Amino acid sequence: MQSNTDIVISSRIRLARNAAGLKFPAKLEPERAKKLPREVYAAVSRTGRFTLRYVEALSEIEGGVLKEKHLVSEDLLHNAESGAAVINEDETVSIMVGEEDHIRLQCILSGQDFRSAFETADRIDDDIGKKIAYAFDPNLGYLTACPTNLGTGMRASAMMFLPGLSILNALEACVEAVARLNMTIRGVYGEGSDSAGYRFQVSNQHSLGVTESELLDAVEMSIGHIEDAELKAREVLYKNGSTGIRDKIQRAYGILTNAYVLSSGEFTQAMALCKLGAFYGFIKFSDPERFEKLMVDAQPASLQSISEGALLPETRDIFRAAMVGKVLRSIS
Amino acid sequence: MQSNTDIVISSRIRLARNAAGLKFPAKLEPERAKKLPREVYAAVSRTGRFTLRYVEALSEIEGGVLKEKHLVSEDLLHNAESGAAVINEDETVSIMVGEEDHIRLQCILSGQDFRSAFETADRIDDDIGKKIAYAFDPNLGYLTACPTNLGTGMRASAMMFLPGLSILNALEACVEAVARLNMTIRGVYGEGSDSAGYRFQVSNQHSLGVTESELLDAVEMSIGHIEDAELKAREVLYKNGSTGIRDKIQRAYGILTNAYVLSSGEFTQAMALCKLGAFYGFIKFSDPERFEKLMVDAQPASLQSISEGALLPETRDIFRAAMVGKVLRSIS
Repeated sequence: MQSNTDIVISSRIRLARNAAGLKFPAKLEPERAKKLPREVYAAVSRTGRFTLRYVEALSEIEGGVLKEKHLVSEDLLHNAESGAAVINEDETVSIMVGEEDHIRLQCILSGQDFRSAFETADRIDDDIGKKIAYAFDPNLGYLTACPTNLGTGMRASAMMFLPGLSILNALEACVEAVARLNMTIRGVYGEGSDSAGYRFQVSNQHSLGVTESELLDAVEMSIGHIEDAELKAREVLYKNGSTGIRDKIQRAYGILTNAYVLSSGEFTQAMALCKLGAFYGFIKFSDPERFEKLMVDAQPASLQSISEGALLPETRDIFRAAMVGKVLRSIS
Repeated sequence: MQSNTDIVISSRIRLARNAAGLKFPAKLEPERAKKLPREVYAAVSRTGRFTLRYVEALSEIEGGVLKEKHLVSEDLLHNAESGAAVINEDETVSIMVGEEDHIRLQCILSGQDFRSAFETADRIDDDIGKKIAYAFDPNLGYLTACPTNLGTGMRASAMMFLPGLSILNALEACVEAVARLNMTIRGVYGEGSDSAGYRFQVSNQHSLGVTESELLDAVEMSIGHIEDAELKAREVLYKNGSTGIRDKIQRAYGILTNAYVLSSGEFTQAMALCKLGAFYGFIKFSDPERFEKLMVDAQPASLQSISEGALLPETRDIFRAAMVGKVLRSIS
């Protein structure tokens, strides 16, 4: 079910699993830990096309690109000894091995599509479960390194674009409302990070004592509530003075398509304004997917990767400006 | 002689004349003053196509447009009783009647072209002189209301675009250098006004004791000196960090072509940066004359005139933004 608004950018289901009879990653013997990635890869590669990527084989740029695509976490990249990610062809599925838990399986789809994301994750989870016995307790459910993940080991999270609520400083009420549904709202890269570009992650706080189905219902209800609030906020923002917000948006577009030097922070903020501008109809983008891809491509590591050469910090901002201008002009 | 740089925007020759036997305008009897415009008009209209425009018949917008085109002064517009301007078809010649002196005859040409401007002004001056006896003293020359205009009654002034010297705060040395040639550097609308958009008026300080020919030599020498200094300043500016100035220029262009609301001040400053950008080759404008015309068209009164309807202040800035964006996109 695709949402007809631009508010839910992506839907992500993550399952935390651990192998029975093995210590959690933090305590696991290195020799044993090193074998895990290949075991997971073997379990899933029969039913799909996956690539196994060891952290130790990743360059700093490659690791950064995967992180900017939300395919691996910073924690996984710190496990250079035995960490790895098993990633499918279209990058909708990533299985981190050797993060906080032995296995962190995620399926991430664009737009609002939790049911499909869950189905895919569930199917792959079954494939792995057939080859690797999971640590499971009849009363507690799946056992995890951190108690917040006990139970289903599942986290459902939506990346939401909330400029209206952010600009009006009205997010607090949403946070309180969804807290009753066991949901929380966080900045873009998860806990403790900034909400750059009006992007927020909405996800469940714990997974104990609720079924997967109940959790999916809760996340969809929460998202529906936030979507309604965001749409109302955008309306208020428009009514309070469309001239000012329109000017701000059009100037942001002018900067993105004309600046000679563009920092990552300014880029993110200006892109967010343009995205809001597309909602209001002030700017038209012929290819919203290309727009979203640009959000990732212009991040520092992705940019390094695209430029096919080491960029000095000052050159990077010039390269970003040129690329962003070119892409945006081609789709607007 | 057209200059091959963009530094001299226009060349203006102004002659101050008074009718013999009449009190200066400030003391002249209203009944007599009212007859002067038609006498001047009659004297010149045999050799060219002129229009006689009485101040009292001008709307506020029409007066403002003439002022923004530098065809009349604020002082003339204050003389609603008997002030008038006799203006030729292509608006290169304007004869103000009833300003500080009875007659203020000016010829203004684009680029550096003082010799032609002087020839035209001189010819029209002769035409008027045949019909109206000028107040002239064999020792002092032409008699004028203000002693600084005594002598030839002539002022030669160049409108110069000096972004390099302005940004580097290096105008002071130029001011001192040209002072030795009896020349001064002022803001765009003459004495006491701001130097908006890096535009400055370079003109002689007094006209007593020098011939017209000497004065033309002095203004051309001064302009040559300032041009050289400006070119050097632009080179220094570029060498000191072309990235920063290029970014500033391209952003200014981005704002001009995308803003939804654009104030007169921001417009002037951004246009100046774009003009500098054209010099450096960062931006290309296919029609520099249209660019210069836009500088006038986007001024408050001209904008009102173009919009063909009374604009509220807030609507005016929106109208300006739309017009400026359209014109600039069409020539770049």
